[in-house]
This record gives sequence, C-alpha cells and structure tokens, in this order.
Amino acid sequence: MASTPGPRIKDIHITPIATVDPPLLNAAGLHAPYALRTVLEIVTEDNISGISEIPGTKDIDAALEDSKKLLIGQDVFQLNQIRQMLVQAFGKDSSADRGLAPWDQRKLVHIFSAVEVACLDIIGKVTNKPVVDLLGGKMRDRVPFAAYLFYKYAGAGGELGFEQDPTASGWDEARQKSALNPEEIVAQAQAMCREFGFQSIKLKGGVFPPRQEVDAIFALREAFGPDVPLRIDPNALWQVETAIQYGREMEPVLEYLEDPVRGQENMAQVRKALKTPLATNMCTTSFEEIPRSIALGSEDIILSDHHFWGGLRASMTLAGICETFGRGLSMHSNSHLGISLAAMVHLGAALPKMTYALDTHYPWQSDEIIIGGRLKFEEGSVLVPTEPGLGVELDRVALAKLHENYKACGLTKRNDEVEMQKVQPGWKFEAVRW
Amino acid sequence: MASTPGPRIKDIHITPIATVDPPLLNAAGLHAPYALRTVLEIVTEDNISGISEIPGTKDIDAALEDSKKLLIGQDVFQLNQIRQMLVQAFGKDSSADRGLAPWDQRKLVHIFSAVEVACLDIIGKVTNKPVVDLLGGKMRDRVPFAAYLFYKYAGAGGELGFEQDPTASGWDEARQKSALNPEEIVAQAQAMCREFGFQSIKLKGGVFPPRQEVDAIFALREAFGPDVPLRIDPNALWQVETAIQYGREMEPVLEYLEDPVRGQENMAQVRKALKTPLATNMCTTSFEEIPRSIALGSEDIILSDHHFWGGLRASMTLAGICETFGRGLSMHSNSHLGISLAAMVHLGAALPKMTYALDTHYPWQSDEIIIGGRLKFEEGSVLVPTEPGLGVELDRVALAKLHENYKACGLTKRNDEVEMQKVQPGWKFEAVRW
Repeated sequence: MASTPGPRIKDIHITPIATVDPPLLNAAGLHAPYALRTVLEIVTEDNISGISEIPGTKDIDAALEDSKKLLIGQDVFQLNQIRQMLVQAFGKDSSADRGLAPWDQRKLVHIFSAVEVACLDIIGKVTNKPVVDLLGGKMRDRVPFAAYLFYKYAGAGGELGFEQDPTASGWDEARQKSALNPEEIVAQAQAMCREFGFQSIKLKGGVFPPRQEVDAIFALREAFGPDVPLRIDPNALWQVETAIQYGREMEPVLEYLEDPVRGQENMAQVRKALKTPLATNMCTTSFEEIPRSIALGSEDIILSDHHFWGGLRASMTLAGICETFGRGLSMHSNSHLGISLAAMVHLGAALPKMTYALDTHYPWQSDEIIIGGRLKFEEGSVLVPTEPGLGVELDRVALAKLHENYKACGLTKRNDEVEMQKVQPGWKFEAVRW
Repeated sequence: MASTPGPRIKDIHITPIATVDPPLLNAAGLHAPYALRTVLEIVTEDNISGISEIPGTKDIDAALEDSKKLLIGQDVFQLNQIRQMLVQAFGKDSSADRGLAPWDQRKLVHIFSAVEVACLDIIGKVTNKPVVDLLGGKMRDRVPFAAYLFYKYAGAGGELGFEQDPTASGWDEARQKSALNPEEIVAQAQAMCREFGFQSIKLKGGVFPPRQEVDAIFALREAFGPDVPLRIDPNALWQVETAIQYGREMEPVLEYLEDPVRGQENMAQVRKALKTPLATNMCTTSFEEIPRSIALGSEDIILSDHHFWGGLRASMTLAGICETFGRGLSMHSNSHLGISLAAMVHLGAALPKMTYALDTHYPWQSDEIIIGGRLKFEEGSVLVPTEPGLGVELDRVALAKLHENYKACGLTKRNDEVEMQKVQPGWKFEAVRW
C-alpha cells in the first residue's frame, strides 16, 4: 500500500523582529541597539507548525514572501524538490554576493535554510522524532559552546542604547559594561564563564590595532591558564605580514586563529607560515569556494553556519566534505535567539566529530521568542532537545512584541558602519586595516 | 514532552544465498553458476522488519554475525552512532583492502551498508514514508538504467551450468546464448533492449583484445544509431597507450569510457589525452581516495555503489562532493536481486542530478526473493516505490530455496579466476593485460 503523502504546506508566516543587542564592536563597525532576525513559521494543512529563524534583511524577507506562492501546497518531506524550485526561482548564489562584511548576504542559502529548518521541525513532529534523529541521530547528549567575547561600549542596547540598566545584576549587569582594553575583556570573560560555564574562549577582534588585541589574548591566558582553549578572530582585517607576526607570537596559546586575513590565497600564505590551525567563515563560505580552498590549502577548520550554507542537511554534507579532506568543522554564529540555537544544537549533536566548542552570540541577547524563555547552558553546553522537531515552540506574545520593536526601530538591514559613524563620525569600513 | 524512543533492534537474521548466474566473462575471469548475496533482516522489538542485500562473502557474513551483539538493543534511528560503533569494532577500511578485482572486498562499508539500508527500511515503515523521502525526497518518479552487455559463454548458470534451458523463450532464451564477438553482442543488446526498453548501453570489456571490443562498440553504434549512448568498461586492464589509442578512436561514439586503466595517475593521464569523459568505480572507490582524485583529476564521473560506499546516506554525501567538485555521479552494480535494486532506485530518485542511466546486472539474474517476484522495467526505468520503506518484502520461501542453493553449491566467496580456470586451464588474472 502506498505510503501517506507528506503534510502539505498551507500557510507561511514571515515575521521580522528586532531583538535588543548591546553596542558590540567588530571589524564592520558597531552593532545597532537592535539585531534583526526573521522568524518563519510554516503551517501544514493539518495545522502542524514548524519554525525557523534567520538573520533579518528586508530583501531576503521580500524574497521569502515571493517564495510563498511556490511553497504553498508542497509536501514538507520533498526538500530536494523544494530546494530545486527555489534555485530555479532565485538563481544560485554567487560568492560575489556574499559581501565583505563578517556576515553573509546571499539570498538562496538564507531562504532555503529558513524553509528547510521549519520543514524539518514539522517532519520531526509528524514522525515523533527530534530533528537530530533526522540527521542520522545524536552523537552526544550536550553540545559545547565557547564564550564569545566582544570589545564593546558600555550600554544595554534596545531603547536604552548606550545607557545601562541600573537594576541589572549578575551577567545582565556585566553584559552592559564596556570592554575596550585587555583588563575589561578579562572581566567580561570571567563574568560570562561564571554565568554559562564555557570552557573555551573566543575574542572577536578586528577592532583595535593588533598589539592591543594580542595583549588581550595573553591577558586571558594569564587569567584562565593553559586549560582553556583561546581563539581570536580579526575578521580578515590583518595583512599577511601582520597575521604571521602576531600569529607566531600567539602560537603557544591559541587553539586556532580565525580569519586573520582576507581571501583564500592570503589565508593559504599565513597557514604555511604558522603551526596554529586557521579557521574560517569568511574565506571559504560556500560549496562553490571549496575546490579552490582545497587546491590552495587555505584553512584547517571551516566554521559552518546553517543559515549561510543552505540548511542542516547541507551542513551535514559539508561535514562529510571536511572529513574527506581532513578539514575540521565547527560553527559560526551571528546575534540570534533560541530557534536558531536549537537548530545549531541539533546539528552539533549529529556531527560525527566535535573537536571544537561552537560559537554563539546567545549570551549577548536578552530577549526570547520561545515558550519557557531563554535556553539554559550547563557547563557551557546546551542539552540536545528530546522533544519532537526542534523542541522549541513560538511564544506568540513575545514574537509580537519583538515585531513591534522591528516596526518601531526603523532598521531594515544590518549596517554596522552607519551605527559606528554615530559614535565616530566619518568612520569607514576597511576590508584590510592593519 | 520527549519524543518516543526509536524502535530497538531485537533480532538480526543473516542469510547467505546463491542465485543462478549465467557464465558472464569479465576482466577477473568468469562468473560462477551462482552469484552469492547475503540478505540481512533486522527485526525490532515491536516486530517491524527491515531488509537489505549485499554481495555475499563468508568473511563479511562472519563479521556481520559478530556485529549482532553490538547492534541488538540499538535504536534504528541512531545511524551515526551505529556507524561509529562498527568503525570501532572493525576499524576503518583501508583502500588497500579493496583488492584488484572489479568488485570491492572491504568489510566496514559492506556491513554498515547492510545495516543502514535495513534500518532505513524500518524507519520508512514506522514513519510511513518511502526510503527516498528519508534522503530528502524524490527528484524523479522513475529511475533510468542502462543495458549492461556481457561477453559470455552459452549457458544458463545454476544447475544447468553451461547448458541451455530448451524451454526458455524471449529474453530468458537470449540470456543463455553465447556472446563472444561483435555480432553476438549486438544480438544480446537487441534482445535486452527489446525486453527492458533500455535507452543506453554499456559493454563490459576487459575480456578480449581491445580491437575486438572496440569493434563491438562500433557494431552497436551501427545497430542502434547515434541516439543510444554507449559506454565500454575494460575494468582497468588496458595500458595508458592502449586506452589513449582506442579512446581516441571511440571519441565520436562514446558517452563515457569507464576505468580504461588502473590507478588514479594513469586515469589522469588518459583523461588529459581524451575528450570523452572518464568514469570510475575502480580508481576512486572511497572517501579516502577522493582528495587524490581531485588533486590529480583522475575522472569525470564516479560510479557510486551504496554497498561499497557505506550506505545510502554516504552516497548522498558523495553526490554532494561530486557536485561541489564538478564531477558527475552515476551508479555501479554487481549481480544482485530486488532488495538491492529497490535501494538503488530510492537513492537514484533522490540524487539532485541524473545525467547518466545507472548500471544494473538485474536482467542477468532470474531468481527473486521478494514478494511479487521480479521488479519491472518500463522503457528502461524502474518506478520509484511509493510504499513505506524500501517497498519490497521478503518472500521467505524463495529466500529459503536460495539459501539451500548456497549450502549446496559450495561457494563461499566470489572467485572468477577459479571459474575461468575450469574452462581455460592455467588462466591467470592480470591486473593490466593489454
């Protein structure tokens, strides 16, 4: 007897939201008081709902809106066909579309990632399985993350902007403090690790001249000792000579060096000169770029991101490619909420190997749109949800509130340069700075 | 609420069988009167049964037997963990273990392929989905295969050996005829295409000196015209110069040239000299060998085989690798029955691209062990099953009969050299012959 047709898509709800984000500094400038995300909800004809979350960008929201007419009526199990349909509608992404910023601006990968994760959430619900089991099952019960340190101005973000909330305490208070030198970075790391139990530390660099950032790494080493792996990410802002000079200096203390320079050739040059493994989410960022990465030997570790690589199943394929070519795999993050975190945890749990704790911005966000509120970390790890699907459900009241934020804040796409110019008039993004 | 735990494995049945096989010639010698397969049946605690089929080899059957104690009690959804468990028990395959024959002799890939396909069959049944939907869903409703021609002695195989069954008619009769020259090959092709509707043709070569086999290709072209794609597979028996000479001669008529020479370097040399795409299932045969294949540029098309690449999901990863590196993907086959054919069809249906009709030996077998008997071809294609799981069920009476054949025939592993020596005393396999 033929099997039952899969659940068909009846409705698709696209909700852009703005979530409070503190004034974090990075190579591209300064985080705005709100980070934008877009929440996708797919509802089937039998009213099963699947959700996902992607970085919020007006253009991509519009493309998602356009894709509705293609998606309605489709069987959520037919992910191969759905992807092909979206490729036909929107064209393949070109690596040129990625842009020079630390985040990705490609259309198709975002759209398909949003649709795929929501469909997998539904498939999990109808098969009564957590998403990790749709990726071959879990290799671990908890997924480890790293403390993700940022240089930052004092401030809470949101309506408070650069103000601090005088009632905040604990990590909430620490999160609002400035971190503009090695001492403040160490204090941030201590507060974050105390709160979340992280056992690896990453410093987002590319903000100050390399000497200051390298000093911060040594200050972290001094404070945390040799058992806490350290990483620094200058977001491709260093020249090859700078990267080699400071890379050599940090060789005794770094777990890996992330995107010290821009472009695969430059990465390959730095890699030849250093013993420290190089990681990337800026030089090799798509399947299209992998052949050249392999030919040049541009990195040791790819920091995947299911929002940028076209979903969870594509990320598993990437894991297979990395294993085949002796590359490591870990995970990149942007400001995100609990739906993305849940998806990252399911993927992290299914990966054959977990050599490095994953990145997450989650401690920097304070809002949440899932029932039960913010997900918990235990000793730096998140427990893999065992509920069917992603294991998180939309809190519609919270979602509506963050959608109001979106409408009120006036932001429509991430632009850290404009935000930085509000603090430092005339500040310009430079693709390579030092 | 936590999802239900997956179905756990209660029993595993391993049944070696011998299926009637005609005296087909190939680079390694001659097919025995029976081809060996091993049928795996996994039964869950709630009595759901999943099946798979792999090439039959005593050593691998013994390893499967050993793996029982690890597998019993496992959740069939936890394929990542099951694989890791088997890797730990049996070690990773090394490419040296493959052997020089056209077929693969590695242990882990066979065992895991058997276990994975049977588990996917169960997962399909409990989720009420065909296996193709567990691979992302179907890209096509029917999967095209090619006519697979063999040089052969007259004979039916089985108890009849080199005798022909005087009652046979149609393709059954044609299958028993000898094919030892271009004219007989054309007659075989015509009978096979008439019966099954194949629209591409592959000639298994490596049997006669190249001139004769190349003449057969031109005779096929003459008989079938330019619209029927032609391929020849000398099973790595030609020298580089031979491959280039005859490859150039066949350039106007070949769709692809399969394994003309042995080894990735030699393939790369031939590939540089020819315009015709090169395909392989002998020079790049594992994930471990892919980096060197890419570095050397040893082939255009990988002929995957889920029995040799470690299952259906690994084959999807291989498809992703081929897409990433601009390689084509098609499918290799050995003598097999309907369980393997069903698995090949589900995989073929899920592949993002289907550029080439797949190989199958199925027309050469006459036995079957699935309920309803032999699967049908329509215009050379097999309809993708829509039933839950693989969509084929064990005919236990037929299975028992073929198991009796196994016990009676005395064969325990494939050895085409020994069979050939019965006809041509002193015949020796040579890794490179012409």
